[in-house]
Amino acid sequence: MGKKIKVFAPATVANVACGFDVLGFAVDSPGDELIVEMTDRPGIQIVEITGDEGKLPRTAEANTAGVAIQQLITQVAYTGGVKISLHKKMPMGSGLGSSAASAAAGAFAMNELLGRPFDTEDLVPFAMEGERLACGTAHADNVAPALMGGFVLIRSYDPLDIIPIDTPKELIATVIYPQIEVATKDARQILQKKVPLTDAITQWGNVAGLVTGLLKSDYALIGRSLQDVIIEPVRSLLIPGFQEVKMAAMEAGALGCAISGSGPSLFSLSQDKATAQKVAEAQQAAFLKLGIESNTYVSPVNQNGPVVIG
Amino acid sequence: MGKKIKVFAPATVANVACGFDVLGFAVDSPGDELIVEMTDRPGIQIVEITGDEGKLPRTAEANTAGVAIQQLITQVAYTGGVKISLHKKMPMGSGLGSSAASAAAGAFAMNELLGRPFDTEDLVPFAMEGERLACGTAHADNVAPALMGGFVLIRSYDPLDIIPIDTPKELIATVIYPQIEVATKDARQILQKKVPLTDAITQWGNVAGLVTGLLKSDYALIGRSLQDVIIEPVRSLLIPGFQEVKMAAMEAGALGCAISGSGPSLFSLSQDKATAQKVAEAQQAAFLKLGIESNTYVSPVNQNGPVVIG
Repeated sequence: MGKKIKVFAPATVANVACGFDVLGFAVDSPGDELIVEMTDRPGIQIVEITGDEGKLPRTAEANTAGVAIQQLITQVAYTGGVKISLHKKMPMGSGLGSSAASAAAGAFAMNELLGRPFDTEDLVPFAMEGERLACGTAHADNVAPALMGGFVLIRSYDPLDIIPIDTPKELIATVIYPQIEVATKDARQILQKKVPLTDAITQWGNVAGLVTGLLKSDYALIGRSLQDVIIEPVRSLLIPGFQEVKMAAMEAGALGCAISGSGPSLFSLSQDKATAQKVAEAQQAAFLKLGIESNTYVSPVNQNGPVVIG
Repeated sequence: MGKKIKVFAPATVANVACGFDVLGFAVDSPGDELIVEMTDRPGIQIVEITGDEGKLPRTAEANTAGVAIQQLITQVAYTGGVKISLHKKMPMGSGLGSSAASAAAGAFAMNELLGRPFDTEDLVPFAMEGERLACGTAHADNVAPALMGGFVLIRSYDPLDIIPIDTPKELIATVIYPQIEVATKDARQILQKKVPLTDAITQWGNVAGLVTGLLKSDYALIGRSLQDVIIEPVRSLLIPGFQEVKMAAMEAGALGCAISGSGPSLFSLSQDKATAQKVAEAQQAAFLKLGIESNTYVSPVNQNGPVVIG
């Protein structure tokens, strides 16, 4: 039997309110578990996928973890192959970076098995190729935080410029996933190609405020800045009950609440765990009033990225 | 003779590259000097204005310092009047916040004379009324840094939310004022009312990067983030030689270079004084090649705002 590793990679929240396309952060749970085993025979073989209700393709070239591993292998002198087993422990198509978690897990696991030829940050481009497969474009705002943990700013794609943003330790995320479907493609097509300059100014004032609040542990400023005047007014229309559920979070004491990724999940940030738990309960009740079931996740902003668990 | 004070208020750079309408900073020089004397007779009287080539109105209601003082006085129980003498020691209509320097000087001086009934930050709205007189709108991105010093973020106007952004101590500004005229009104009218979403995303990625660079003293990040893909491509057309003069700054070692305010001045930031001085010389030479005379100012980012000088 070859060298083998089991890793966990976290779910992530991208499009953080005013930080559309540039800010993302990781949470401690949920996430994906991936087992990667080195083999003598070249090629990547998927042994097993669980937790996906049979929805994910079983060939490595069509799997985000497989693609990320393949991308990494082509950069090093590794002549063997791998077997992978993927255990999805998070919802797919939920706006929580499911494909990114798998891709990050793949790149991270392979790098560990090979004795870390790459720094964590250098794994991002490999995982981005997994995103290209899953979403059509090689976005980094889920895979970068999934690999690096914490809040991450994607300042630029050309060249790729990824900036970790230190966050206060007591910053707790509440994520709620309502059991409705929003196709990422619809969520993108619904956006206007041009936006009013005045709204753009409001947005970049808030982005600057949010980053300052995070770096200075100024919770009130984080809260005031968690606003999105450009994307949310459009995309929230795809989420039944959005206004009521957001209101429920704010009334329960959240610093702010916005769409996670392209939805339908929502994220909130709170200053302590008790509040974050209250937010989860209030939001779940608000969705239920409209007859919508939901799953909630309460966890600190993840500070470490993927971890070896076996 | 009544109680009398002489103050200096600094010039400021607004619209800091990607931070259009939300970021501004103060410089140590140039700036305005203002003498304010308390009198028994109510009313604000302008005794003297120098350095303006006779261009500024001589009535208090039409002068930005006079308006700022009047605004402050209406908030306190002061029944006397003041005499003011304004010495403009900086160019007007240059994009360096000339009207804001006078307004800041007025509000600051009056507050000192009255024994500081207001915190510095609370003087901003008074000085903003001076800006409303001078520019038609009550912008804060010059008066806030003129009063508070350093880099300042105007996150929001409604409600007014002013966030000081700590900056590295070794951050030296070069400002160059070419002797050409750009009407602020033209500079504003030339802007598009709608901007591509992709450009807006680039801009807010850079704003987040700039603020992070300033707060973490990451000079390279400050440099990479000092880009403006929305306003500069349009407004730079009003400044002959803009590309050559910006290039001269970059080749001389500046971290970045962009339009100051609505122009025609340009500002650059450098990591040390020798570089900032080289930038000034290279830019002056570049303008001169095109037959344009210019004034340059090299100074650290001002950390204190206005000061009492007599």
